[in-house]
This record gives sequence, C-alpha cells and structure tokens, in this order.
Amino acid sequence: MKQIAIIGASGYTGAQMTQLVDTESQLSVQGIYVSEGSADKHKPLSALYPAYSHLPYQISPLTEQAKQLIIADADAVVLATDHAVSLELAAYFYQHGLAVFDLSGAYRFADKNQYPKWYGFEHTQTDTLNDAVYGLAEWNATEIAQSKMIAVPGCYPTASLLALKPVAPFLTGTLPVINAVSGVTGAGRKAQLHTSFCEVSLTPYGVLGHRHQPEIATHLGHEVIFTPHLGNFKRGILATITVQLTPDTTTQDIVKAFAMYDNSPLVHVKHNAFPKVDDVVMTPQCHIGWKYDENNHYLVITSAIDNLMKGAASQGLQCIKIHFDL
Amino acid sequence: MKQIAIIGASGYTGAQMTQLVDTESQLSVQGIYVSEGSADKHKPLSALYPAYSHLPYQISPLTEQAKQLIIADADAVVLATDHAVSLELAAYFYQHGLAVFDLSGAYRFADKNQYPKWYGFEHTQTDTLNDAVYGLAEWNATEIAQSKMIAVPGCYPTASLLALKPVAPFLTGTLPVINAVSGVTGAGRKAQLHTSFCEVSLTPYGVLGHRHQPEIATHLGHEVIFTPHLGNFKRGILATITVQLTPDTTTQDIVKAFAMYDNSPLVHVKHNAFPKVDDVVMTPQCHIGWKYDENNHYLVITSAIDNLMKGAASQGLQCIKIHFDL
Amino acid sequence: MKQIAIIGASGYTGAQMTQLVDTESQLSVQGIYVSEGSADKHKPLSALYPAYSHLPYQISPLTEQAKQLIIADADAVVLATDHAVSLELAAYFYQHGLAVFDLSGAYRFADKNQYPKWYGFEHTQTDTLNDAVYGLAEWNATEIAQSKMIAVPGCYPTASLLALKPVAPFLTGTLPVINAVSGVTGAGRKAQLHTSFCEVSLTPYGVLGHRHQPEIATHLGHEVIFTPHLGNFKRGILATITVQLTPDTTTQDIVKAFAMYDNSPLVHVKHNAFPKVDDVVMTPQCHIGWKYDENNHYLVITSAIDNLMKGAASQGLQCIKIHFDL
Amino acid sequence: MKQIAIIGASGYTGAQMTQLVDTESQLSVQGIYVSEGSADKHKPLSALYPAYSHLPYQISPLTEQAKQLIIADADAVVLATDHAVSLELAAYFYQHGLAVFDLSGAYRFADKNQYPKWYGFEHTQTDTLNDAVYGLAEWNATEIAQSKMIAVPGCYPTASLLALKPVAPFLTGTLPVINAVSGVTGAGRKAQLHTSFCEVSLTPYGVLGHRHQPEIATHLGHEVIFTPHLGNFKRGILATITVQLTPDTTTQDIVKAFAMYDNSPLVHVKHNAFPKVDDVVMTPQCHIGWKYDENNHYLVITSAIDNLMKGAASQGLQCIKIHFDL
Repeated sequence: MKQIAIIGASGYTGAQMTQLVDTESQLSVQGIYVSEGSADKHKPLSALYPAYSHLPYQISPLTEQAKQLIIADADAVVLATDHAVSLELAAYFYQHGLAVFDLSGAYRFADKNQYPKWYGFEHTQTDTLNDAVYGLAEWNATEIAQSKMIAVPGCYPTASLLALKPVAPFLTGTLPVINAVSGVTGAGRKAQLHTSFCEVSLTPYGVLGHRHQPEIATHLGHEVIFTPHLGNFKRGILATITVQLTPDTTTQDIVKAFAMYDNSPLVHVKHNAFPKVDDVVMTPQCHIGWKYDENNHYLVITSAIDNLMKGAASQGLQCIKIHFDL
Repeated sequence: MKQIAIIGASGYTGAQMTQLVDTESQLSVQGIYVSEGSADKHKPLSALYPAYSHLPYQISPLTEQAKQLIIADADAVVLATDHAVSLELAAYFYQHGLAVFDLSGAYRFADKNQYPKWYGFEHTQTDTLNDAVYGLAEWNATEIAQSKMIAVPGCYPTASLLALKPVAPFLTGTLPVINAVSGVTGAGRKAQLHTSFCEVSLTPYGVLGHRHQPEIATHLGHEVIFTPHLGNFKRGILATITVQLTPDTTTQDIVKAFAMYDNSPLVHVKHNAFPKVDDVVMTPQCHIGWKYDENNHYLVITSAIDNLMKGAASQGLQCIKIHFDL
Repeated sequence: MKQIAIIGASGYTGAQMTQLVDTESQLSVQGIYVSEGSADKHKPLSALYPAYSHLPYQISPLTEQAKQLIIADADAVVLATDHAVSLELAAYFYQHGLAVFDLSGAYRFADKNQYPKWYGFEHTQTDTLNDAVYGLAEWNATEIAQSKMIAVPGCYPTASLLALKPVAPFLTGTLPVINAVSGVTGAGRKAQLHTSFCEVSLTPYGVLGHRHQPEIATHLGHEVIFTPHLGNFKRGILATITVQLTPDTTTQDIVKAFAMYDNSPLVHVKHNAFPKVDDVVMTPQCHIGWKYDENNHYLVITSAIDNLMKGAASQGLQCIKIHFDL
Repeated sequence: MKQIAIIGASGYTGAQMTQLVDTESQLSVQGIYVSEGSADKHKPLSALYPAYSHLPYQISPLTEQAKQLIIADADAVVLATDHAVSLELAAYFYQHGLAVFDLSGAYRFADKNQYPKWYGFEHTQTDTLNDAVYGLAEWNATEIAQSKMIAVPGCYPTASLLALKPVAPFLTGTLPVINAVSGVTGAGRKAQLHTSFCEVSLTPYGVLGHRHQPEIATHLGHEVIFTPHLGNFKRGILATITVQLTPDTTTQDIVKAFAMYDNSPLVHVKHNAFPKVDDVVMTPQCHIGWKYDENNHYLVITSAIDNLMKGAASQGLQCIKIHFDL
C-alpha cells in the first residue's frame, strides 16, 4: 500500500485526484492539503464538493508540521498547486526522497530558460529539474518508472501529443495547426468574470502566445500553431489537428503509426470516425479519430480527453501506477 | 422626444435598458452612468457588451455635475442600481421633478416597515415612498400614468403575479405554491463562485425566506410559498404555480378570468398548453399556460418571462411608455 | 458469481446497467439483448456508446434460443424495456425461476386496475403481479430479499418517495406539491422533435396527469400534486416538494424522521442546505435538503438523484445486491 | 412597399426570415409557404414557434394556385427550401420575373459540374444559373443590385469568406486551415438522433469532404482545409482560421486590408481581441478578431456570426435591401 499526499486538494484537479486515489486498492490517501492561508483549510472535502459526500477526507493546512508528517508517512506527493508553488514544493519533497507527481507546469521544460517567458519566474531548482521526466504515460513509461520527479503533462499537450507523436515522422515544414476547445474547469475554481456562467461562450484565447504551445512543440520536436478556445461545457477537451504530410505518405503508413496504441487500454483510435467530447468525460480515456486525403496529403486528427482526468489527475494516477509498478 | 438617463448601465439590466431605449423612436438616451467609483466608467458600453457594438454610448461616472445635467436635460431616470443606491437616487431625482423608474426593490413595498427585514435598511425617504406606485404594467396602468415614482416589479413577482392575480378571487386558505427557476443573469454580472460556469446546476435558494415572497404576497393580497431556483441557462424565468381553488370554481370561470389579457399584446395565455423558457427569451412577452382539475379543484399555472426583459428592462420601458402616453 | 442478463441494452438505462454490472466483482454479464427487430442487434455496445469503448459486450437479438440460454445460464434478468414488453418478459422469466428486476412500470402498481388508465394495457400477468414487490431499496429491503419479482421504481417516484416517506406521519389533508425537473435522458434515446437539442428548454409536461403521480401516491399512501418538467441538461432529477405539516410538528420531529437514513450510504440529508443536480449526476446517491417554517408549518424538501442511476440502473443494482445478499 | 413570399417557412431559417421581413417598414410578407405534403401546412407560424406569438402569419401549402398568386402579387421570393427543391423553384419564379433570394446551395457554384458531386443532382437550370450572383453582401453589392437571381451564401462560407477575403492577396501556397463550430440549428429542425439533446457534444463532421469547402475555395480563389464541428449551443458559428502569409506581409498591411469594413455597419473587426459566439447571436453582425505573428508570418483570424442570421436570413434581408435599394 502506497501512501499518497495530495497538495492543492481544494481545486478541481486536486479534488479529482483525491477521488481517484481513494478508489485504488493499492493506494491510500495520506492526507489532503491546501496552503496555510486558504479559506478552505479544516473543511471536509465534501463541503466543497458535495458529489464527494461519500469521501471522508478533511482538508488540512500545509503547515511545517504537516510537511514533516508527509515526509515521514507518504511514499509520494501529488502537487495540484500553482506553478510557482509547485516549483518549491516539488524540490522540497523530492530532495527528501519522496516521489513527486507535479500536475503544474513547473517542471515540464527541460530547458530552464523557458520558464521566465512562459511562467514568469526563474527556475531556481536546477538539480530537481535535471532529474524531472515528462509524464506522458503512453510514451515515457521507462522514464516514469525510473525517476522520482514526474512532470505530468498539461491537458492540451496530452490531447495534442497523443495525436501527433505517432505521425511525427511524416511531418513537413508546414506547421501543424492545433485548434482545441476546453471545458471551463480548465480555468480553475476561482470566481472570475470571464468564467461566469453568463459570460461563457465559445471563444479563442492565448492566440499565438499560450504557454502550452512551446510545451507541445518541445515534446513533439516540431513547431506548431496552437489556438486554445474556451467552450461552453464543464469538462473535456477536443483538439482538431490539421497537418500536411510528406507526399509519399500513404494511408497505410498512418494506420501502422497509430497501431502503436493497440495495446494501450486508454487510447482508442478510429480511422474515418471522430470522437465527441462527452465520449470521454469522467473517464481516463483518450479517443482519437483521423482522416487522410491522399491527394493533397493533408491529415486531420481529432483527439478528445477529459481535461481533469487524462489531462491531469488520471494521467497522474497512471504515472503513479507505472512508477510503483502497480 | 423624451430624454432618458440610465443609471447602473454596466449591469445586465441597465445595459438591456439602454439597448431598448435606443430602439424607440420617441425616446432618446440622455446618458448612461455608473457610480463614480466603478471600474467601468469612461468605457464604451460595447467594451462590456460586444453584442452592443452598434450602440454609440459611453459610460459616464455619476458625478455631481452629471446629476445636474440629468436634472437639466432628462425627462426620466431609470435606476438599474443596487437597492440601497436606488433608495437615495430615486428620492433625489423625484424631488427634482423627474419621472423615476426604479428597477430595484427600494420602493416596491408601501409599508416602510418591510425594508429593514428584507433589504437591510431603514426606508428614510417617506415622502417619495408615499407617492410610489407598483409598475406591474398590465394591472396598474392608471397609477403608472399618474405618478412620477414607479417601482418596477421584480422578475419573480412579475412572472408570479401575472399568473396569479386573475385567479385571486378563487383562492382558498391553502397557500399557493410557486416554484420558479431563473436564468443566471438574475444574479447579476459580478464574478461569484456560485454563478461560475462550473458550479451552476439546478438548485433552490432562499427557501422560505426570499425577499420576493413578501413582494408577491403584498401585491397579490394572499400569502404564498415561494421557492426560487437557479437554473443552468442565461436568461428567462419559468414559474410553475399550484393553487387550490374554491370548490365551486369551474374551468369556465378561469377562462373568463384570464380573458382579461385578451387585449394585452405582451401576455399570451393558453389552456392545457404550457410555455418553455426559450419561447420568451429576448422578448418582452409573458407566456402563461394552465390546466385545471375540476375533481380536486387544483389549478396548475406556468408563467414564462425573460427576467431581464419583462422581469426588468422591457417592463420598465412599458412603464415609461404608459407614463408618457407614447 | 451471479450471471445477469440485460434486456433492452441499447437504451440509456440498459447501457448504464451493463456498465454497472460489469464493474461488480460478484456479478457477471451473461449477455445484453435487444428485440429481434432492433437495428442495433449484433452491434458492439461501444458502437452506440463510445464512452463504453472499454466494455467488450456485443448486443444480441432476443431470439427464442437466446431466451433458452438465459434461462439455462442466468441467475437474474434486468428488463430495461418498454412497459408492454416488460409485462410479458417479466412473467416469462419469473415463471422459469429467474429473479427479475424490471426497470419499467409494468409491475409497480399492486392494483391491476391502474394499468389500463396509466399504461394503456390490461395487466394479464396476475400471478406474477401478485408476487411483485416495489424495489425502493432503502424502504423495502426485506421484500426485495424475499421476492424474485422486483419492480424497480420510476425516477420521479424514487426522488419523491425518499424525500416524502419519512415525513408522511406529519402530513395534513393539504396535498403535497411536487415540482420536479428531469434531464432529457429521461425521455429515452429515440429521436423526437421535443427532445431535439434546439427545442429543449425548461417546460412542464404531463401536468395533472402523469403516470408517476399515482405511483407516488400509492407508495406514499397520500394523494399528491405532481408536476414534472423537462430541463436543459442530460442527466439528473431535482424534485422540490412543498408540504404542510400538522401544527404540532416541530423541527426536531423532522430531524428524527430523516435520521432513518443515517445508516444508508447512498442517501445524504442536510438541514437548511440544498443539493444541486450535478452533486449526484453519475453517482448512485440521493441528496436531500430541507427547511421548515415552524410558524406556518410548511416544509420544503429538495431531492436530487441521477435519473439513470438511483432513478433506474443503480437502484436496480442495489436491488440485485440486496436480493442476492452481496 | 415590396411584397416578399417566403417558401420553406416552417424551418428555422424560413421562420427567422419571416420575423425579419415583418419588422421592415418597407417590406411586407406576401405569404409564407411549405410544400403541399408538409404536416405544417395551415398551421399558424406561432404553433411551431411560440416565440413568434405576436406574428399573425399562417403557413400555406405551395399549391399551383399559390404559385400563381405569388407571381401576381410578390416582388420577390425567398427560398428556405432543400437544395433540390430550390433548384426548380428558383428557376420557376426567376423565369416569371420575380427576384429570387435562394438560401439553399442550389445556385452558389457558377460551375454546374460541381453540383453532382456536392449536392447529388445535375444542375438542369443552366439559364438561371448563368444569371445567378453570389450574395455575399459586403463584397458583391453591385452584382446583387443588378441580378434578380441571388444565391445567398452558406453559413460557414459567410463566416470564412468575410474573414479571409481581405487577406487573400497575402496568402502563400500553404492552405488556410478553417476550424469552425456551428450551433445545432445549422442541422435543421427535423428530429435526428445525432442532434438529440443527449447526443450533442462538440465533435467534427464532414472532415475533408464538406460541401462548404469548395464553396469557400471557389469564392476565395484559393484552396482551403475546412473542418466543421457541431457545438453544444443552439445558434451561432465561430470560425478560427490559421493562414500563413507571404514573408513581406506586415501587421500594417493587414490593418489596411480589414479597413475595407470600416464603413460596413454589420462587420466589426478587432486587432488582438477575439469575439465569442454569444456576441453575435440573434444579431445580423459579423465580429472578426485577428492576431499576426510577424516572426513566422502566421495569422489567426476568428469570425463569429449567427448562422440563422448573417449566415442565412439576415444576409438574405441585406441582399433584398441592396437589390431594391431600400
């Protein structure tokens, strides 16, 4: 039985993580935490999330004492915290020997020079960063098993990379165009005008400047154009990706490339059929559909995941299970 | 041409009022205003509401100078302000001779003793309150024409009273039960957790204690049970009302009672057919459907309005047109 | 290991039942079936429900041979079929010794005279009907354990009865008023104009004449007014219930009455706090909130369930587990 | 006063057209029609669309006699009919001297060889087709004024072409990628499983093979990749378009190009700010936002319209007003 501490448990991702860990027979929730200043400390999780009324957990403040207890009792820490908070906490727990599964963006770039531009801070934890691996579960299982510092991918990058990486060998210089729509949970739980019920309506944001663009490009090994949108639904991401392939690429080449997922229980690929967001909501799955025009060598791929599940918590759980060989 | 000043124009109701006044050939927008401290002052209305990109109005702060200009130039003031703000502003402009159409609750009770309990303030403007009339347009046209101080009804009371007042003579001691569901615009434009997109889901609120209950009871002349709900849509109210009628009441009696609306262009009544919210959204109409069981003398009435239109701005416009005989 | 055959598996309820049975370690899916004439026969379930891509089941036509196999192999049959179809199939399998869990309305009334009026058929299966028990799990566990013919309650009756039965001793002659709103899955999977995306908007239906009214009244032992509504969401029911209690009823009486659920893991009751639909969607739970006005003796109760879960499939599963003592 | 006959008035587009023509002081509704076999004939329009309860129109069957009356009385015919029906009716009324505004796709290609592939019929009305002009109002006003045969553009092409045509001179050989999401009204009013409330969830369709792709390409003069999606909202289209521009293109070039809309009251363009669908729903407007990366020469444009308004009926009305110089 592995003991898991979940930090940042009041947010959508942390709460989801708690629910997932709770259902696993080989994992146990060591504790769930928020920052000492949070208004949610000492509340039962079910006060924030009535859907989790059956879960017995109380939210604790992450005091110095709590940290010591985590180090003493837990096997792993899941960080569902802000990027700048994860930066410090990940290094702290990693240096104390725990496995760290960071759901933030603080360790997703190997190149520390990327952080000031995209996250607004200098990456001060060089040693921990050097050991960090990117937790794209279907691609990096070996690294996830070997390192104790796992940077779990972002939601958009997960949807995009699972779709694009198999066909990377066939890309031309023309940039892949990724249009993705996310449910509103992707913006977090804090009350904000642009995520108020009456204000939400399909619209792009972060155009030509979203921090998930370089995350995708880095882990794909190819520049991309990435345009995220806010959609009028709560959960889920649908990414529609248009790519030009080299002229000699055949439909059969693509069939073979996606066959790499034949043994992946969580990735389902269909040729000439396309997923919808609700096919994957509340599930850990990724559904991919694609169609190829052999005349103009354009390929359209659609990838659907639940942003809080495969895009965050359930991929975190996958990483935990891979890491501990469960 | 009557000049209308609209105060509180940055909110959903004030913005809607601006759009409505703009379309009327016999009315002109003297100016649109917010409080001096508002972050929205000096913005074009279209910056807050891109749907009103075709409207040329800029939001001004309600300075002392602006008030003088309103008194000099405007024929009427529409208050789309908080109750406590309306309390003062209504009296101010009324005492200066302007017609006041107050969309808040500050003048809806004739009995000043109601205000501390339901609105949290002492009603200090007795003279103005004494002259105030309740702007339920289909019922109080004479009073609206004669008074310059009009308290435009709340959204739930409008939906409820238009449905209940015709059958008031047939009520028994059993309390009418009003279950109503409002779109989220009813909660205003401010970012709040409970109206965040991800948190909204059908639920009751203000159970056995909402301030619209005494407003309905007062203007119906009969106690009621009123249970409002927040629904997962932007605009509209649907009120389903269950009443027991006196044993001698026939279907024909009810038909005759509702026939009072036969000449009301904005109230449509159907027997044995029921409206849905979207039938009236973005319109000034009230749709009413009813069915009566002559065996047990229970009558079910459903009433639908757009909360920002017939429940606020368009009923305000009706009152303006009645008052100025346009 | 109990073998469960699921008939009517192409509909929302049958598919949900299949998913639930699949996850139970002590249950096994013997097979999933549709009528011989169905266009869905021989399809994998995942072709209809991509969200169930991880489930291996194929839909079989319910041929004579299939029936024989069910009788030979299955311990229980779940009927997610039309009322008239269930009428025959339930009796058939019951007479052959299988436990039958019928999710339709064909066996919910003990009085066979109710069926022609509410379901449009004569109830021809008197013997089976005489043995049928009403599967309201928290109330009728003993009967469910003893009988092999279980009529699983309707969605609206489940939400209403769980809320009302505890306070039944305090009711007066004034009729309880039940206003309930259901998600659109309640109308089934067939394409119909009134459940088309563009047509759906909150509206009542079946006013003063819905077949769930007598089901509620019968199993409550008290007449009620029941007004169902179609809401603009996919899953869930919220029932808001207004009742007048006898003048000597205290708040404490109600607290005690609802304490009967203290040991029911699936029913959560709160005083002065109310559920929203999404609190229970995709869960087997029932959330109840209530508030009582000791001055006028009116009690308002709100009850929320997922119509496909506690309102159908997961309550069916509860019955199965009670019956087989799992 | 011009008399307008509207054929196909029971559908979403035809009903919207009726409402729009009704509000125009210089236009009059000669009659509204459906095919002789339609179940909606002889119904009041308000029976199908309660939101139009204030409109007095009754739906007539398009009998031979009705056609004669139209020819005698009407100045123009609006066709909101199926493509194959429009093919014949447009030619019929055009040959009889009426102005024809066809909202279907039957006359949008000048090249008759396109029709068998994209619409499944041979275009038999060569003479009428030769005279047809494409009613993209902001671009083809002269042609619309001069011809009596106007093919009003499709909804996706309107959103796409208004965004792309200004920058057409700067395109490279790399294909523009158009990702568009439409509200469900775009699929028409007929009950179908894929547009049932419970089945709708963001998903692409018609990938690499939708008939609006060649319509866009033809009227842009450049091949494009076009991927439409069904979104979970009723009205509106959002098209996000990614294009690579020639290396010497500057931001200022694009500013100048979009300045062509400075005097178009219905097209609003913003630099570095993007529309959402609800900004334009229920309005005749097109909102465009764009951002350009001068480093890699990629331009992202988002265009939002109401599919039933600027994407059909209100653009039809624009064409009518241009044609008759109103």
